[in-house]
Amino acid sequence: MRYFIEFAYDGAPYFGYQVQPNQISVQETLEKALSTLLREPIKTTGAGRTDTGVHAKKIFAHFDFEGELMDNLVHRLNSFLPESIAVKRIFEVKSEAHARFSATYRTYNYFISTEKDPFTKDLAWQLWRKKLDVDAMNEACKILFEYSDFTSFAKLHTDNKTNICKIYQANWEQNGSLLKFTVSADRFLRNMVRAIVGTMIEVGDGKLKPEDMHRVITEQHRNSAGTSAPAHGLFLVDVGYDFLD
Amino acid sequence: MRYFIEFAYDGAPYFGYQVQPNQISVQETLEKALSTLLREPIKTTGAGRTDTGVHAKKIFAHFDFEGELMDNLVHRLNSFLPESIAVKRIFEVKSEAHARFSATYRTYNYFISTEKDPFTKDLAWQLWRKKLDVDAMNEACKILFEYSDFTSFAKLHTDNKTNICKIYQANWEQNGSLLKFTVSADRFLRNMVRAIVGTMIEVGDGKLKPEDMHRVITEQHRNSAGTSAPAHGLFLVDVGYDFLD
Repeated sequence: MRYFIEFAYDGAPYFGYQVQPNQISVQETLEKALSTLLREPIKTTGAGRTDTGVHAKKIFAHFDFEGELMDNLVHRLNSFLPESIAVKRIFEVKSEAHARFSATYRTYNYFISTEKDPFTKDLAWQLWRKKLDVDAMNEACKILFEYSDFTSFAKLHTDNKTNICKIYQANWEQNGSLLKFTVSADRFLRNMVRAIVGTMIEVGDGKLKPEDMHRVITEQHRNSAGTSAPAHGLFLVDVGYDFLD
Repeated sequence: MRYFIEFAYDGAPYFGYQVQPNQISVQETLEKALSTLLREPIKTTGAGRTDTGVHAKKIFAHFDFEGELMDNLVHRLNSFLPESIAVKRIFEVKSEAHARFSATYRTYNYFISTEKDPFTKDLAWQLWRKKLDVDAMNEACKILFEYSDFTSFAKLHTDNKTNICKIYQANWEQNGSLLKFTVSADRFLRNMVRAIVGTMIEVGDGKLKPEDMHRVITEQHRNSAGTSAPAHGLFLVDVGYDFLD
């Protein structure tokens, strides 16, 4: 039987989502907990592979297991796992459902603190020294929808076959002292959201004009875009599947 | 001239508010920043003396300074101070205004996470393993108003002349997965809020009945109350002065 597991994690203590030799990853920590409680080696496939320090508020993984799941497995997993990983639910899916390839969209948030705030320092980029023009940043967002090749926002030397993505949503919203970027797409390239945010900050800061986004994107080179925003402000917040509401 | 400084801090990196020999305190960190920017030794008097690990969202201190304050002092202080301390404003007050003795009330919040949440682990007590009866805890709150001697919630062997406090507000409120305790009083004894929260959790958990609060309080002994709740869930959130709105 195939199961989906929905969970959340604080990325700070991990060297990214995916299993890495000699480093602690979210995936390894989760698989160790599942294997211990289900008493057989469990391999998981995650919906995405977040980088070191990136968080997830809602992410899924799938695993196969033929035995019977105990009723209180979610509670027992949460007791076993460290405070930085929380399991929300585990449910059976069709055998062809795939956490990564069946996903129809992914949504990320990036948080920026526009006032100095000791309580968001680990979960938002502290940019209170800058005065950001949020309207200009939202103008820049609109330009993203006109393109599909995002090579300029892709990490160099990755093994992606294509840098084509379909962006469904992109906007900035100010809530109190938190400035939130929401971006949805069918897929994301490695480092893409952080590169977009870094470039948008240059727009907000006046270094770039919103219409410079055309040039940044069409040049199709990472050097055309801004520096990557730091990992600790980035959250994977949703993954969509046709078979889930 | 006397000035009030309003600020906030994450208590995690500090050995409490007050200057301690050989330990880093909030007060020492603040005084060092003020003294550097104002180019003379500045001593501050805080509105309260929070314990190690306790946070403040809104606290005041006063200091005396005869020179002229630079316009951008708040911004420069925030640049100088670590991420864990944020200065909100600095304003002149009458020379007899005293951050500690002029305060008419103080308000604390205590946060409890009733679902496992990686993102509140440093700012709320993670009690998702327990099923808490919030109605019973609110019943217990009402009993606090009937008393004024809170010796049972006071740390033993302190040099308090009196353990008499007037409680103005006390209630529990569930917002999503966060359970928030709000308590206001004219003054608080050392460790008092954490001892009240620890006792209330025993009520929520069914170990005590709400009406047991009468006995806990009238026995006037710390052993009658529950264990102290951990420091990281506690926030000083307001201090009232007649001359501020």
